Amino acid sequence: MAPTENAAITAVTLGVADVAASLRFYVDGLGFREISTIPGEIAFVQSGHGPLLALWNVASMPGEYGNVGHGPLAPPMSLGQNVDSAAAVRDLYDRALAAGATAVTEPTLREWGGTSGCVADPDGFRWDFVHNPGYVRDADGSIRSV
Amino acid sequence: MAPTENAAITAVTLGVADVAASLRFYVDGLGFREISTIPGEIAFVQSGHGPLLALWNVASMPGEYGNVGHGPLAPPMSLGQNVDSAAAVRDLYDRALAAGATAVTEPTLREWGGTSGCVADPDGFRWDFVHNPGYVRDADGSIRSV
Repeated sequence: MAPTENAAITAVTLGVADVAASLRFYVDGLGFREISTIPGEIAFVQSGHGPLLALWNVASMPGEYGNVGHGPLAPPMSLGQNVDSAAAVRDLYDRALAAGATAVTEPTLREWGGTSGCVADPDGFRWDFVHNPGYVRDADGSIRSV
Repeated sequence: MAPTENAAITAVTLGVADVAASLRFYVDGLGFREISTIPGEIAFVQSGHGPLLALWNVASMPGEYGNVGHGPLAPPMSLGQNVDSAAAVRDLYDRALAAGATAVTEPTLREWGGTSGCVADPDGFRWDFVHNPGYVRDADGSIRSV
């Protein structure tokens, strides 16, 4: 057991078909900040205190990630943004659609007591916009159960 | 365009086959902190300032996320932890294997000038442990290009 590092997610990398199109979606559309880009290969964007988001040409992934790729179903995961009200869920959902996302499920009051809406980015990766009254978001963006 | 929220990743949700097994991997194995769990359905864990990590029974996802699921290839994405040295990459890689991860690519000096190693979690989701000399990590865990 290594004593050196606490486990953490400091980056999320998505395999994308078109790096330029994804960069437009995330920067021009959603408002992420571009950090650096190797055209056609990979782009790094970030927002606030969140993890780095890397948009990597999916064709380049297998050399490092092995047997990965898009299949008939979208990847069973989501990136989420927790917000403080149901109205903010709707705002983010509408902004994502305006940026070119595809609607998956409309903002809805869920049986678990909060509101969420889901869209797909240009490669099908799900984004989940969530207001969960059981969680609060601290100033640094981290989430706490209350 | 909604003025209310800056884009951010505050949560990452993975579709998992066995919530209890994934919870053991992330909490006992990697050292994430358990926040709350609904047995068999979903578990929430967190570490430091990073996003919340949700481990959600993949069978429950389609109701909210639509047509998602595991296929013949692993999802074309990774969760990443950027660290400050090649030795720390090796430490994290070894710890993940000890926790039950599957090796994908050994820690290697890559052509882009840094060191990375890749493992798969119990559902095949890739973790990428990275030392990139072109990035520094601030105290809050966020990454900056230098």
